[in-house]
Amino acid sequence: MINAEQYLSYYQGHRRLTRKTLAAFPADKFTTFSVGGMRPAGGMAKELLAMGGPIIKSFATDVWGTWDEDRTPLAQADALAQWDAGTALIEQYWPGLVAKGFDREITIFGQWPGTVRSHLLYLLDNEIHHRAQLYTYLRALGIEPPAFWER
Amino acid sequence: MINAEQYLSYYQGHRRLTRKTLAAFPADKFTTFSVGGMRPAGGMAKELLAMGGPIIKSFATDVWGTWDEDRTPLAQADALAQWDAGTALIEQYWPGLVAKGFDREITIFGQWPGTVRSHLLYLLDNEIHHRAQLYTYLRALGIEPPAFWER
Repeated sequence: MINAEQYLSYYQGHRRLTRKTLAAFPADKFTTFSVGGMRPAGGMAKELLAMGGPIIKSFATDVWGTWDEDRTPLAQADALAQWDAGTALIEQYWPGLVAKGFDREITIFGQWPGTVRSHLLYLLDNEIHHRAQLYTYLRALGIEPPAFWER
Repeated sequence: MINAEQYLSYYQGHRRLTRKTLAAFPADKFTTFSVGGMRPAGGMAKELLAMGGPIIKSFATDVWGTWDEDRTPLAQADALAQWDAGTALIEQYWPGLVAKGFDREITIFGQWPGTVRSHLLYLLDNEIHHRAQLYTYLRALGIEPPAFWER
């Protein structure tokens, strides 16, 4: 249904939209504002940053670091700079990941088992999920979020 | 990266999670509660119901109805019954969709151009997006949402 090249393009489109969403917050709200006791944008960004780039790199290299549990909110400028670094990592390591295949069973960070395919899908599901919560935060702040269909 | 059978299983897993999310609301909040001026759960459910089942069926049959713009909130029991009907439609028409291929260019409901593949991906992106907003509503109501990783 979808090949590796199509998937990368689709995934990077989503990452562009997530970057726009992170950038839409006022800097002070990025580390403080939330709804229903959830994490502020800077805390969610920290989780997403610990996943995207590092996981793609580890699939290509088979070297895994420790899963970073720290969710202290990042400042917006730091989050955006790290986002761009993650995007570059993904472009760099995607061919290596593809060469090793999507059917391999890997327990990522020594904790979560699954195929490379299932981990990649989960990674993006999780990004869409948290980004949509950030859309709700933006609406609650009276800010129009970026258009969902523009990638 | 992913074949048609894997995608159906992944998609139906997401639909099960969305159903649990819709079911987690108290019936009265389903049609009334929202955050930041967005639609209540019953209005979002109406949009998702107009997409999933009907679009898969139309890809298989090449017969398209009119896009339903009505977002009057559905009652929770009606939304859940229609959800199950949509799930059955998807199971029924998926093989017909697959037989016709994912590369066809189709302007769905006479309004939105794209390949079958891109429409299918968008359909699920949109479901994850609105479901995550419903997670925020549940949190704001003090209700624990279903576990995101359980499908």
